[in-house]
Amino acid sequence: MKVTAQEIWRSVSTIREQAPLVHNITNYVVMNTTANALLALGASPVMAHAVDEVEDMVDIASALVINIGTLSRDWVVAMHRAAKRAGERGIPVILDPVGAGATRYRTETSHELLAACPPAILRGNASEIMAVAREEGTTKGVDSTNSSQTAVRAAEKIAREYKSVVCISGAEDYIISDTDTAVVKNGHAMMTRVTGLGCTASALCGAFAAVNSDYVCAAAEAMAVMGIAGEMAVREATGPASLQTLFLDALYNLSEEDIAHYFIGE
Amino acid sequence: MKVTAQEIWRSVSTIREQAPLVHNITNYVVMNTTANALLALGASPVMAHAVDEVEDMVDIASALVINIGTLSRDWVVAMHRAAKRAGERGIPVILDPVGAGATRYRTETSHELLAACPPAILRGNASEIMAVAREEGTTKGVDSTNSSQTAVRAAEKIAREYKSVVCISGAEDYIISDTDTAVVKNGHAMMTRVTGLGCTASALCGAFAAVNSDYVCAAAEAMAVMGIAGEMAVREATGPASLQTLFLDALYNLSEEDIAHYFIGE
Amino acid sequence: MKVTAQEIWRSVSTIREQAPLVHNITNYVVMNTTANALLALGASPVMAHAVDEVEDMVDIASALVINIGTLSRDWVVAMHRAAKRAGERGIPVILDPVGAGATRYRTETSHELLAACPPAILRGNASEIMAVAREEGTTKGVDSTNSSQTAVRAAEKIAREYKSVVCISGAEDYIISDTDTAVVKNGHAMMTRVTGLGCTASALCGAFAAVNSDYVCAAAEAMAVMGIAGEMAVREATGPASLQTLFLDALYNLSEEDIAHYFIGE
Repeated sequence: MKVTAQEIWRSVSTIREQAPLVHNITNYVVMNTTANALLALGASPVMAHAVDEVEDMVDIASALVINIGTLSRDWVVAMHRAAKRAGERGIPVILDPVGAGATRYRTETSHELLAACPPAILRGNASEIMAVAREEGTTKGVDSTNSSQTAVRAAEKIAREYKSVVCISGAEDYIISDTDTAVVKNGHAMMTRVTGLGCTASALCGAFAAVNSDYVCAAAEAMAVMGIAGEMAVREATGPASLQTLFLDALYNLSEEDIAHYFIGE
Repeated sequence: MKVTAQEIWRSVSTIREQAPLVHNITNYVVMNTTANALLALGASPVMAHAVDEVEDMVDIASALVINIGTLSRDWVVAMHRAAKRAGERGIPVILDPVGAGATRYRTETSHELLAACPPAILRGNASEIMAVAREEGTTKGVDSTNSSQTAVRAAEKIAREYKSVVCISGAEDYIISDTDTAVVKNGHAMMTRVTGLGCTASALCGAFAAVNSDYVCAAAEAMAVMGIAGEMAVREATGPASLQTLFLDALYNLSEEDIAHYFIGE
Repeated sequence: MKVTAQEIWRSVSTIREQAPLVHNITNYVVMNTTANALLALGASPVMAHAVDEVEDMVDIASALVINIGTLSRDWVVAMHRAAKRAGERGIPVILDPVGAGATRYRTETSHELLAACPPAILRGNASEIMAVAREEGTTKGVDSTNSSQTAVRAAEKIAREYKSVVCISGAEDYIISDTDTAVVKNGHAMMTRVTGLGCTASALCGAFAAVNSDYVCAAAEAMAVMGIAGEMAVREATGPASLQTLFLDALYNLSEEDIAHYFIGE
């Protein structure tokens, strides 16, 4: 495993010192909670989607997170413009293909964004990654152990073709590049009952990619921090809503000792 | 009363087992909290509003919830398309005419949606239901005991004309079809200080309608579960924000015993 | 200092008695939390942005809050229409130029809104107020002690030119008209780690301006209540997410004694 607890802590510390500006073009459902997660971690979030300003916003950002969770035409145009500018400026783009495979519009938008501006990190669940890779046997919303193997192959295909790091999140998170892999085993099942924690993971990938240009490490660090904060939150949570609150507070308070105690990866 | 605690529990259990996909075209204010409420109950929420995908999303959904809380033109077009497709596929539509009566745009949009695709369940407060029924004496935001009688007559008129089940929420919730009625007496006044709990009620109507095709029962079950979780939350809440958190956790933990203990209906 | 604890309490009591309707055209990130803050305080929030209804909504509102946090073209058109109507009806407009200075689109939109319909209260952080005043030396997102002096001069310039009350929020909040000033010293640094508390302050300015036509006092009262509720929340918060919850509950429970105990202004 490339990533160690010390390295995760170093990146967390760097984010807290530098407060990198993370520009999000994301879905309505999660805007508030992902902004709060970025703030709790120590980054500076900004949400901006207008075609009239996305390029200006990219110009002052350290990472761009594109999330297709609630799409419409103007937003897709803005996503392309922002991603193109990010490519020109050399800042990392994170792409979260929410719901790819559920509708043609999402699947095709994901393909077009991936092809036009291959992201530093593509993060989704197994079925989304399979849909993006146009793998047969894609099944909506199913993220079983069996499909993990298929999803890993799909991720390898994307990583080869686009040179993107692909992060498949699930009970175990697989991070795959064309030369490297990592697995993060933190997290808790109750996290799937909180809307938008996958989107939060993508947003945190943006913060880590802003301070760590080894994007396999950046994605693994983000997933580790997500899972660790989630496990810490679950200890006192009485359900998914208190879990969300405790998760954000855990992100804010996360210490070197917490990471050393909880991190499981290989 | 048609609905019993055992039947409410049976529907809750079915939702938890089947995790029906509930497609929401809803307002920006409540997207996060209604998605979390559906997840906490055990359903699978999806939010999608683009004209380019709403029909595809309806095709994989078990219920469609249309909420006009933050309208604009493209969204209204998408609402009509989605409702039409839901009608063709025979999946239940829930319509929440948020703010009908407050502006002509909302009143007229409600009328047009009701007429084009009569919903399985129309859920609103007394003034909204009166506005949808074009009742004289509609007063903005007032939901007094006196107006309850007028609202019930308005609901009966809509139920006769459109064959929709009409749910008037308030201190007591009235569920009215052209042949049947139910009253649910759960809930707590502090719930009116949390934004979007009415919208959450409509979303939960979608989940119950997905597993119970007797829509009077489905609406009564949803309102009962709302009120019970609210009462459980109020016991420990120190204000409306902790009430929201405790409400969602109560939905997640809701047991057969809780329902038997709290349910009051007739 | 014009504002006293007793006067703050009087305005809070009036808001709770009258529940003024505050019409918000605001950003997606904060819609839920600002609606909840207005409800917790005792006001009635409504969010509406469609060009087809903003004027009708202004017609029944007691204040209009315009927040440019997530702009797009249709929304800017609606903001102008709503502000114009509010001007005609004589209800106070609050303008929050979120991110002015970060992109040209936001800076120019702020200028255009300010010039077309000078607001009762313009509220922003130091860098936003400097950008709106076209002051040299504007620096993105920096709100240092040094810049406070520059920001105050920028606010004085805006107050002279447009007859608007300008509120600069920060560790200390400066409220400046062409004839008057106030300073509020409540609040806590952890509040900057919660997304949208600045936007919440603008929304509360709307509620106070609806019941107090001395807009210097109204703005100072809003900032005092924000800071007091924040300080009360911080005592029990374990991080920014529990702070948000406790803040809203503190707003709901705020008593005359709390205000007398915590208020610091001059």
